[in-house]
Amino acid sequence: MDIKEEQDIKREFQLERVILFSDAVFAIIITIMVLEIKLPEGMRHASTEKLEGSFIELLPKLAAYIFAFFITGMFWAKHLKLFSYLKDYTKQLIIYNLIFLFFITLFPFGVSVMAETLSPKNYEGFYVYLTVIMLALFAHTLLTGYLVRNAQQLCIKPNQIKINLEWKAQKFNFIAIPALFIYAIAGIHYKFNPEVFSYGFLLWAIAFGVIRKRL
Amino acid sequence: MDIKEEQDIKREFQLERVILFSDAVFAIIITIMVLEIKLPEGMRHASTEKLEGSFIELLPKLAAYIFAFFITGMFWAKHLKLFSYLKDYTKQLIIYNLIFLFFITLFPFGVSVMAETLSPKNYEGFYVYLTVIMLALFAHTLLTGYLVRNAQQLCIKPNQIKINLEWKAQKFNFIAIPALFIYAIAGIHYKFNPEVFSYGFLLWAIAFGVIRKRL
Amino acid sequence: MDIKEEQDIKREFQLERVILFSDAVFAIIITIMVLEIKLPEGMRHASTEKLEGSFIELLPKLAAYIFAFFITGMFWAKHLKLFSYLKDYTKQLIIYNLIFLFFITLFPFGVSVMAETLSPKNYEGFYVYLTVIMLALFAHTLLTGYLVRNAQQLCIKPNQIKINLEWKAQKFNFIAIPALFIYAIAGIHYKFNPEVFSYGFLLWAIAFGVIRKRL
Amino acid sequence: MDIKEEQDIKREFQLERVILFSDAVFAIIITIMVLEIKLPEGMRHASTEKLEGSFIELLPKLAAYIFAFFITGMFWAKHLKLFSYLKDYTKQLIIYNLIFLFFITLFPFGVSVMAETLSPKNYEGFYVYLTVIMLALFAHTLLTGYLVRNAQQLCIKPNQIKINLEWKAQKFNFIAIPALFIYAIAGIHYKFNPEVFSYGFLLWAIAFGVIRKRL
Repeated sequence: MDIKEEQDIKREFQLERVILFSDAVFAIIITIMVLEIKLPEGMRHASTEKLEGSFIELLPKLAAYIFAFFITGMFWAKHLKLFSYLKDYTKQLIIYNLIFLFFITLFPFGVSVMAETLSPKNYEGFYVYLTVIMLALFAHTLLTGYLVRNAQQLCIKPNQIKINLEWKAQKFNFIAIPALFIYAIAGIHYKFNPEVFSYGFLLWAIAFGVIRKRL
Repeated sequence: MDIKEEQDIKREFQLERVILFSDAVFAIIITIMVLEIKLPEGMRHASTEKLEGSFIELLPKLAAYIFAFFITGMFWAKHLKLFSYLKDYTKQLIIYNLIFLFFITLFPFGVSVMAETLSPKNYEGFYVYLTVIMLALFAHTLLTGYLVRNAQQLCIKPNQIKINLEWKAQKFNFIAIPALFIYAIAGIHYKFNPEVFSYGFLLWAIAFGVIRKRL
Repeated sequence: MDIKEEQDIKREFQLERVILFSDAVFAIIITIMVLEIKLPEGMRHASTEKLEGSFIELLPKLAAYIFAFFITGMFWAKHLKLFSYLKDYTKQLIIYNLIFLFFITLFPFGVSVMAETLSPKNYEGFYVYLTVIMLALFAHTLLTGYLVRNAQQLCIKPNQIKINLEWKAQKFNFIAIPALFIYAIAGIHYKFNPEVFSYGFLLWAIAFGVIRKRL
Repeated sequence: MDIKEEQDIKREFQLERVILFSDAVFAIIITIMVLEIKLPEGMRHASTEKLEGSFIELLPKLAAYIFAFFITGMFWAKHLKLFSYLKDYTKQLIIYNLIFLFFITLFPFGVSVMAETLSPKNYEGFYVYLTVIMLALFAHTLLTGYLVRNAQQLCIKPNQIKINLEWKAQKFNFIAIPALFIYAIAGIHYKFNPEVFSYGFLLWAIAFGVIRKRL
């Protein structure tokens, strides 16, 4: 093996480290959220009725965990797809990836807020979690954007990268997600009915779906 | 290296990511269950008698952990075997794998319920944990089924895959596990003696063992 | 690449999975022990004196963590060395490895007992932790023994394996560790002075050191 | 494949194990710090005002986590760079690496002290965290020093290693960090104003920046 080839292999291993580090972060996040779902202490000598009551109190937490598990899994699958086009890395890529991972690590916080506060008269926790998801999506768009701009240096088949990553649909998030946040902050300021938030998110979801299909 | 070969290697690395991500989830699950086993706080100035009492109270938790550690280890070994036949992956495979991992992540919850509530007059916690194990087994059967159906595309030596994965025995779970759950729910509804559950699980275990041997 | 070679690579990847799974378990164990070291809640508005008092109370926990971190690191280095001689795996190897990992996962429990109870008049916690370490060492000896017995099938350079793994010194643990436990149980039964335990452990350490040097 | 080549590959895999073990430790550390950020229990039936108050109380913890996440990420990127020059490992390297990882594992403790105690009249927690960071930096310098001294055996392109690792700037830490600690201890002893500490850290940061630029 000559030195050039050895260096190439080394460089490829660096990229693998970045990827496997990200995988480990995803695996920890997707797993520690389950620690939320717990019976209260001191159930050993409780009556069957009290035990059943405790189980019923766990149901919203379980629902939140199922939702969060598959959302996190979906982000991991997105990361898997995105990095499958990479052949090299740069310092900036590592930073963008860390920013993306940062918002992923906020998921357990978002889920715990949702599971702790959600009730028929209180949707705030759900909005906190939606906010974290939207921020992670925005960071994912930033990361994708960096890849597209530096495709010649970083990607396999750089000419097809925009099509492969559905860049035209992704690009929509650059404007739509900040717009959604401005709308939401305005909503808080003018004390709209909380359901107004839902309409904003719904609008974004429909618009993104339509754009994705048409391209 | 030509482009075709490079893409093949890339694709193989994607499959490795799926596998190593699963391994990380298993490693976390098998490890965090130990955090359950803990002395109560403020033991620094306790008398030797009180300390010994605390240790004795830990024994059922330790037993539950030993049981859960090796059950989780067994599922990991099953995953190791299953994926050793894979040469490619699809989006559906990732989803089936995530569903399987989801039920694995419920293990710490199942163990904690069992350790927290098990007592001579209360077997409910044990049934909760058995339920989680059966669900994980069912998800494993679904995953195996997907592999068998797509063996030509996904597997090494596709013609032998049914024999290698003991598919005829596995297939039994498709009917037996849902049947077990219907039986269990009927049992709860008609307020059977809890021991009736044990008979159901026992029956399943014996039937599965017999089928596995005969094939 | 012909089928034979492909299968060899697959098999080698299985072995890597076993190894990286073990690494992940070690990494989690070595890391979660730090979660023990924590200031009590509600320190935000405490006086400087109270804060300093809290720090001083943390010192034995910190000492226990430093000790445990490097003991765990040492076991990981032993595992690294042991598996560097492997070229294949069997189902039994996976089971022996899981048993070894099981005792490693008990480390956080041992450390927490030690940190929680150790005081000038109470050494029990320290003995609990020493017991866990000795059990891990015994499981390591069992694993090494399995490798030595199946060296032709499993190891690189099978003829040198006994020398490479210092088998003659390791073998001593087969008798010495169970002997130590019998001695300790007898000690508990006859209510010896707790210091008697220390003599047992010390004796084992000296004997093992001498044997290792002479071979 | 002849035996020599097989051994080389084996050896390279050992080095990868050391690296991936370190990555797993980093991934766990960077992730578990988020568990600090949590709403207090029993928020399900709280009023909106109380809920908003709880969120505001979380803000310093969130700020501490953001800071800690990117500091940890920076140390991981340093580790990535450092190990990209390695082609072999020794027992000493593993020990130096474990010492470095040890101080990284203290990060969650440092962050939790900072988040728990920081207030306008109390900077002590911040100094605890800064101390942990400086110790990690010192351990990193020790590790780099070991690499530089053994470059012929351990590194790719050993003749350029000092330039690649900015060794002249790094070397400065050998004296500057211990000096900083002596200064800090003297500061505590003579009951300086806590702001004096800040000056020390600031001075180090400026000096290190200047030296790094000039070389």
